[in-house]
Amino acid sequence: MSISARAVCIREPGGPEVLHLDDVEVRDPEAGEVRVRVEASGLNRADVLQRKGFYPAPPGVAADIPGLEYAGVVESVGADAGRWSVGDRVMGIVGGGGMCTHVVVHETEALAIPEGWSMSDAAAVPEAGLTAFDAIYAQGRLGPGETALIHSVGSGVGTAAFQMVQALGGVAVGTSRTQWKLDRCVEMGLQHAVLAQDGAFVDGVRAAVGKSGAHVILDTVGAAYLSDNARVLAHRGRWVVIGLLGGAKGTLPLGPILAKRGTLMGSVLRSRSLEEKAALVAGYDDYILPLLRGGQIRPVVDEVLPMTAVQRAHERMEENSTFGKIVLQWTEESLGG
Amino acid sequence: MSISARAVCIREPGGPEVLHLDDVEVRDPEAGEVRVRVEASGLNRADVLQRKGFYPAPPGVAADIPGLEYAGVVESVGADAGRWSVGDRVMGIVGGGGMCTHVVVHETEALAIPEGWSMSDAAAVPEAGLTAFDAIYAQGRLGPGETALIHSVGSGVGTAAFQMVQALGGVAVGTSRTQWKLDRCVEMGLQHAVLAQDGAFVDGVRAAVGKSGAHVILDTVGAAYLSDNARVLAHRGRWVVIGLLGGAKGTLPLGPILAKRGTLMGSVLRSRSLEEKAALVAGYDDYILPLLRGGQIRPVVDEVLPMTAVQRAHERMEENSTFGKIVLQWTEESLGG
Repeated sequence: MSISARAVCIREPGGPEVLHLDDVEVRDPEAGEVRVRVEASGLNRADVLQRKGFYPAPPGVAADIPGLEYAGVVESVGADAGRWSVGDRVMGIVGGGGMCTHVVVHETEALAIPEGWSMSDAAAVPEAGLTAFDAIYAQGRLGPGETALIHSVGSGVGTAAFQMVQALGGVAVGTSRTQWKLDRCVEMGLQHAVLAQDGAFVDGVRAAVGKSGAHVILDTVGAAYLSDNARVLAHRGRWVVIGLLGGAKGTLPLGPILAKRGTLMGSVLRSRSLEEKAALVAGYDDYILPLLRGGQIRPVVDEVLPMTAVQRAHERMEENSTFGKIVLQWTEESLGG
Repeated sequence: MSISARAVCIREPGGPEVLHLDDVEVRDPEAGEVRVRVEASGLNRADVLQRKGFYPAPPGVAADIPGLEYAGVVESVGADAGRWSVGDRVMGIVGGGGMCTHVVVHETEALAIPEGWSMSDAAAVPEAGLTAFDAIYAQGRLGPGETALIHSVGSGVGTAAFQMVQALGGVAVGTSRTQWKLDRCVEMGLQHAVLAQDGAFVDGVRAAVGKSGAHVILDTVGAAYLSDNARVLAHRGRWVVIGLLGGAKGTLPLGPILAKRGTLMGSVLRSRSLEEKAALVAGYDDYILPLLRGGQIRPVVDEVLPMTAVQRAHERMEENSTFGKIVLQWTEESLGG
């Protein structure tokens, strides 16, 4: 029992040229599930890693279709799935297969798209928003008035993170190695922007928020920033590593971690159980979605491209020239229509 | 308002020869406090570090008197301190100054010495027991049936930890670089003993408890074990670093930490607030003290020495030849009597 669909497929591990559109089958929703006709899907670093063969899909997820998020319309509802009706506009994360015209998700994994939003704006939200919320609040437990240090602040996760922190009464310090990305964030309202020149940011962070440092660090960089992060972590600070753009192995100074009683956590959303994802989505629904509806947090879309331009989208992401999210959209052409 | 006391004092940073007995003043207990006449005090690695000048006392604690634990008799009770009466036998941790004939502590920081115990046995318990309980349960949250990997298993903390884990229904795997220390632990009932030959223990741990690895790691070693610990950490494992005997800076592989969603926590007891210490002591009182009274957990004393032999005690600790704790006792001679 399935329907025909179109998807971005990875022919074999390699460069953007291994990506192509192909016909695939998508199964019917089972109990508690819904099938969504996808209109747009945000691009993530993880898609690039998966294309290169470094980040295989978890068990139960199509191995050759990338895509960790979607925005679309509920098209079919499984048994005992009472939360959504056919025609509802929803967005969410998936363990893979998001770059497809159809996805099947559990009803508890989907979020309502705010009224009046475009599908491409909605597609820019789930992965970045849930990642930032999970790292800073669910895991990092940032308290009122506490400081969050957000690396790669011009990224999708970064822009979601600093808006969230400031809307919820925290202090945000963002770093980037690119001045114009910092300028854009400041235009959007970022309180403290620190240029990480040659990857160094300790002095900048201390000048911005004082010597007490960062209560939560949202770290997309990994190895290259281990030493400086350990230095600026606050007493009893929580340091959540969600990416390894700066390498996977580095020298960790344990002395300050012990003295400060710091915590370093590794985090990925993709491999989580349905129960964990549902709990995270419920928290986001309660705390963050109202801020999206109210406009205090805005999706940050760098460019919207048709799904036929997926190779170009990957190239742009690898150039590090984007601000916020690249969104891919299903169009007549990409549907083969 | 104070009394005359005798204490081990550190003349200046250096070798064991900088330690000497001297007369000091100890203040009267204030509201909520008691003063304890100390009979014995366990020696800790931290005392050696402090003697060398590497681990200064926290604010509010005598800078030149080492000692992080004591066993003795309540001698004087401050206002509003209703928990203990003069003559009660108590033990506990202090931020420093434990190697003194008298200590002043808050009443919530003290624990009742089990009936029939010697003072030297009691003096071997507080720092090791509270450290192990805090790391494995309060922070590591070891669950029933889960596995705890305990490095330096023949140490005071190690022997307290493996007994605790097994008494509470967990699985204990202990490592040591010294075969006879492992043998002694096995005689005491340690379930899984792994010889860390040349500091490698991954194969041994996997052979003992399977590939799923350790849900909690109690790490006294630091840098030298960073890589192997990251490998044997279980999915969502908690890794608590309490010591840096193997160095303070090492290469951390972040890949497995992310993939497993692992947590690395640095922990020290010494600098904690009174409130935190009181909460920890209350938890230990509830969960562990009954096991000490019942004999399921036994203090492990390597040697009891008179306080006059404090230099020799430090030498023995630095030789790494001890099994369990060295305890120093106040005697007529050391009191200058």
